Amino acid sequence: MMDEAYRILPTIVNPTDLHRLSDKELQELAVEVRQAILDKVSVTGGHFSSNLGTVELTVAMYAAYNIPPDKVVWDTGHQAYPHKLLTGRLPRFDTLRKHKGISGFLRREEHELDVFGAGHAGTAVSAALGFAVARDQLGTDERVIAVAGDASIASGMSWEALNHVGELQTDLTIVLNDNRMSIAPNVGALKNYLSKLRSRPWLQRAARKAKTAIEKMPNPVTKVAAGLRHGITHYLAPDETGTIFEEMGLEYIGPVDGHDLPLLLEVFRNVRQLGGPVFVHAITVKGKGYDVAEDDATKWHGVIPFDLEKCEMVKSAGPVTYTQVFGETAMECAEADPKMVAITAAMPDGTGLVGFSKKFPERYYDTGIAEQHAVTFAAGLAAGGIKPFCAIYSTFLQRGFDQVLHDVAIQNLPVRFFMDRAGLVGDDGATHHGAFDLSYLTFIPNMIVMAPRDTTELREMTLFMAGYDRGPTAVRYPRGSSDERLPESRTPIRLGVAETLLNFTGKGEKVALIAIGSMVGPAHEAAQTLMADGLDVALINARFAKPIDEKTILEIAGECTAILTLEENSLPGGFGQQVQTLLNKQGWKGRLDLIALPDHFVEHGTQPILRAEVGLDAPAIIARAKALVQQPR
Amino acid sequence: MMDEAYRILPTIVNPTDLHRLSDKELQELAVEVRQAILDKVSVTGGHFSSNLGTVELTVAMYAAYNIPPDKVVWDTGHQAYPHKLLTGRLPRFDTLRKHKGISGFLRREEHELDVFGAGHAGTAVSAALGFAVARDQLGTDERVIAVAGDASIASGMSWEALNHVGELQTDLTIVLNDNRMSIAPNVGALKNYLSKLRSRPWLQRAARKAKTAIEKMPNPVTKVAAGLRHGITHYLAPDETGTIFEEMGLEYIGPVDGHDLPLLLEVFRNVRQLGGPVFVHAITVKGKGYDVAEDDATKWHGVIPFDLEKCEMVKSAGPVTYTQVFGETAMECAEADPKMVAITAAMPDGTGLVGFSKKFPERYYDTGIAEQHAVTFAAGLAAGGIKPFCAIYSTFLQRGFDQVLHDVAIQNLPVRFFMDRAGLVGDDGATHHGAFDLSYLTFIPNMIVMAPRDTTELREMTLFMAGYDRGPTAVRYPRGSSDERLPESRTPIRLGVAETLLNFTGKGEKVALIAIGSMVGPAHEAAQTLMADGLDVALINARFAKPIDEKTILEIAGECTAILTLEENSLPGGFGQQVQTLLNKQGWKGRLDLIALPDHFVEHGTQPILRAEVGLDAPAIIARAKALVQQPR
Repeated sequence: MMDEAYRILPTIVNPTDLHRLSDKELQELAVEVRQAILDKVSVTGGHFSSNLGTVELTVAMYAAYNIPPDKVVWDTGHQAYPHKLLTGRLPRFDTLRKHKGISGFLRREEHELDVFGAGHAGTAVSAALGFAVARDQLGTDERVIAVAGDASIASGMSWEALNHVGELQTDLTIVLNDNRMSIAPNVGALKNYLSKLRSRPWLQRAARKAKTAIEKMPNPVTKVAAGLRHGITHYLAPDETGTIFEEMGLEYIGPVDGHDLPLLLEVFRNVRQLGGPVFVHAITVKGKGYDVAEDDATKWHGVIPFDLEKCEMVKSAGPVTYTQVFGETAMECAEADPKMVAITAAMPDGTGLVGFSKKFPERYYDTGIAEQHAVTFAAGLAAGGIKPFCAIYSTFLQRGFDQVLHDVAIQNLPVRFFMDRAGLVGDDGATHHGAFDLSYLTFIPNMIVMAPRDTTELREMTLFMAGYDRGPTAVRYPRGSSDERLPESRTPIRLGVAETLLNFTGKGEKVALIAIGSMVGPAHEAAQTLMADGLDVALINARFAKPIDEKTILEIAGECTAILTLEENSLPGGFGQQVQTLLNKQGWKGRLDLIALPDHFVEHGTQPILRAEVGLDAPAIIARAKALVQQPR
Repeated sequence: MMDEAYRILPTIVNPTDLHRLSDKELQELAVEVRQAILDKVSVTGGHFSSNLGTVELTVAMYAAYNIPPDKVVWDTGHQAYPHKLLTGRLPRFDTLRKHKGISGFLRREEHELDVFGAGHAGTAVSAALGFAVARDQLGTDERVIAVAGDASIASGMSWEALNHVGELQTDLTIVLNDNRMSIAPNVGALKNYLSKLRSRPWLQRAARKAKTAIEKMPNPVTKVAAGLRHGITHYLAPDETGTIFEEMGLEYIGPVDGHDLPLLLEVFRNVRQLGGPVFVHAITVKGKGYDVAEDDATKWHGVIPFDLEKCEMVKSAGPVTYTQVFGETAMECAEADPKMVAITAAMPDGTGLVGFSKKFPERYYDTGIAEQHAVTFAAGLAAGGIKPFCAIYSTFLQRGFDQVLHDVAIQNLPVRFFMDRAGLVGDDGATHHGAFDLSYLTFIPNMIVMAPRDTTELREMTLFMAGYDRGPTAVRYPRGSSDERLPESRTPIRLGVAETLLNFTGKGEKVALIAIGSMVGPAHEAAQTLMADGLDVALINARFAKPIDEKTILEIAGECTAILTLEENSLPGGFGQQVQTLLNKQGWKGRLDLIALPDHFVEHGTQPILRAEVGLDAPAIIARAKALVQQPR
């Protein structure tokens, strides 16, 4: 459908434009929003099924509330495309997740109604409570809503926030967008608990009764003053005496059908009047309105461009990815060692553990979005004599940083960390780049930190880690597949030993490239050009960021006066600075250049575009190397 | 009391020794354990009131269980002195928290029955679940218990763990040591909820009924098979249909009087037979058995040596601490700006915010042990137009690391972080040293990171931060008071500008000391000796770890060929490496030495002992400086 084919949606620039629409027109608008998601995302790719699930919820909230100044804080951006469409971004939607285009997540810089950025899950209730308390402090009276998913509400920080919400008792509405799975089917006891709540008589099944009940409610002030806080809940759900959320001090309303627009309008128009913390439990269907996505929500969670009519995503076979290689090697390790188990935090697909979970279900643990627990659970397993493989994306392991340090490293426990999505991840942007792991792991005593140059080396490092029992180990590797620029010759992985890929030949001015992980490929490519241009290039594949291979590095340094280090990681605390400190300590007086990520957050775009932009591709390396050898000695 | 005055305690080397005691002797043992805590801790100082609260709980558990192989995982070490006393450490108790002596917390290196180290709160359930699953994987049959406090159970990671426990349904007992406050009175909705549970008929009030009930229980296997999981709970607490913990899938037993030894023995002997996850809710009294400590548990939480008879802790007035100065300056800022609020995560005393909480109760927020939420709550406040001062110890901010990066820094929100206990904290040891904050903050884009040379400068930096609205700021400062070695002359705090404390005089070989924070004092002291020994010393007080003052550093570097950087922080990613990278970039070819913490975890001991041990005191600096100028240029 062309944009002009939408009748109402193009006229919506601000959510307040919804106020002039009749309920019937709102229903029509919801149809257009859903169609726009189908039309646009099938072309651009992006998060798909979650966004189909929040169409009516968003239309109803935005029609019932006064936005701005009312604020809606979305947890993660997976579910916020309807929000983007209702805030005037239809014309830009073709640029979704493209370089310089609109983000797939929420970004304060992108729109004033993206009131709080979101990429990692579980932040909405905390941030919304911040907005609510700011309002109370400033004496204004806007309403604040947090919209959280059923997986993110189970994360530890959401519980910390709910505990504080229950204590402060300020006006705040939390909408649980319960689609019964996050990316993969949800896990944990709370899942079962939510199922139990869902089995209650739904609000809309008792629609007339509910409506009457709400209409009969005294005004919120009177109601709270009279101590009848739980009136509405108990009226609507008389067969339960309380829910966890009520025990936490919130007014629980639900469950409601998250696709019944008239009901949602009724609920939100009333909830907007309520004082104190309110919890609205809405049941939605991931992929709603697109049959194949309803049937397989995991497959359709994030999509590549696809044929809308044929309902087909044609994934090219493509080269094998790091993710696949890790998954296969993990199974190989499990086969070889009955003590090996695998842990993921809600990312079985993303970390490549789906095959493992099927082959070794009794040795596979998905903690849900709970990185803190996942890491310390792994530490407990290691202390108990088991070999845990803990597979968490680089950016998400930041959530378990203290646990890596305090529970794993201080006790020197042999937990194995597998950090997929290290470096620039591409379309997901700043919140998802794994830009910092070499830095945040290298200063931790007892840690061993590696990065492979290609998928073959990831397999070898994984096997090395499986056999290493003396303390914690970590390996970080990028999204995607390894390039084919590297020679196949191999030397075995030995602790703290680098691999020399190119030696000096004695012809031309010498320059050494010391690269780690994903930068070995571009360094090798750059080396070919530099050699063709008359330089004598040595190339070290560092393999270990900690401990660095002092011997190999000092040997190469002894032969030359120009060295470049290369890493797809932040500069402070990264690989290059460790090499620099070593060289300085040894009194090496040559010229050194550290190539690393810049000191600003990198936005979204394809990996090649971003790597070129920040100077991590072969042309940039060539330029830096040539500039270095031209510096005075 | 002399050690020989204890009759039974000295005979207890392993918890299994308790099996040969009668219940009456166990009661006597409990008295001795309590007396030992009074006798020993009044002399050594240490955590006091929490440990008086767990005497009967520990005796009962250790008598009822078979340890080893059964495992008890303690959450934090505040409550584990009875555990230490019942595992043969009475003879070493005089060395508590002393250098090379026994730790105030749990340490795997210290004793095989310290099965999992603990310093930061909230880790026990995760670790215990790890042990339980390891047992299941290995096919052994030991029992596993986690003992958590009511404050740590409210931390996010405990909830993540409970959610997983509820799902896995393996055999695991969680004992809630509910003393109704942690360090300070507990906060959050869960607190109210636990009060509600405490108002139930206590198990011991219905003692005969309870006993009968337990005795009548079919054996666990039958019970579980028959689907009667909640039988015991409902029998004992028939007036409630469920608790949060039951909703999470645990069998809830309680509340029980945590000081009624016969009852506890009965409960634990029976609980040990139960299958699946069990939650035992024990009510204890902080300071139990020492009247003044019962009355003021916060004051007596951690004690200095005191007179046991007079019940008096005589604190010398002493010089003003960084903590006090921050607290006073925070009040000054609040006075000046109604938009300023203060946030602590369960540490109002430790962070110096008690005065603030009394003077500005409506602008003071204690989130409980919930650093993740505290940081993102602050981010929400900042996004909402409020000025949050977020005061969290350096080591505990590690828990909110991802939130600092993802919720604060990516959005460049002006949250102010105040990190007390940076550097070596002394007696609390490895789990509490703030050894990494300069490293884990410096690589985060948009962050501004400072450290004051003394308390006066902390005040000035705090005022600077109050006035800085363009992005996030952080200041880190040590435990204790500033030394008096520094000149009082002041230059105002300006963004990214260092202070030159000593300039080159032109007499002698030049060496520059560039120090940050707590190292400026020792550097100044060292400079006096170095100058007396004929060197020409410049001393820069860096003030900013990010952005570093490139101009001042390059100017001083242009004048000399020997520079030392000094920081009480880990070397990788710290201040020195940033100076090193700057100097290298500018082609500076002098001699550089980076003085920082070593790459291993530093144990407990007084700050002066530890600083000397790791080479951060004046004599060490003098030696390093002299060695540096003797190196070939």
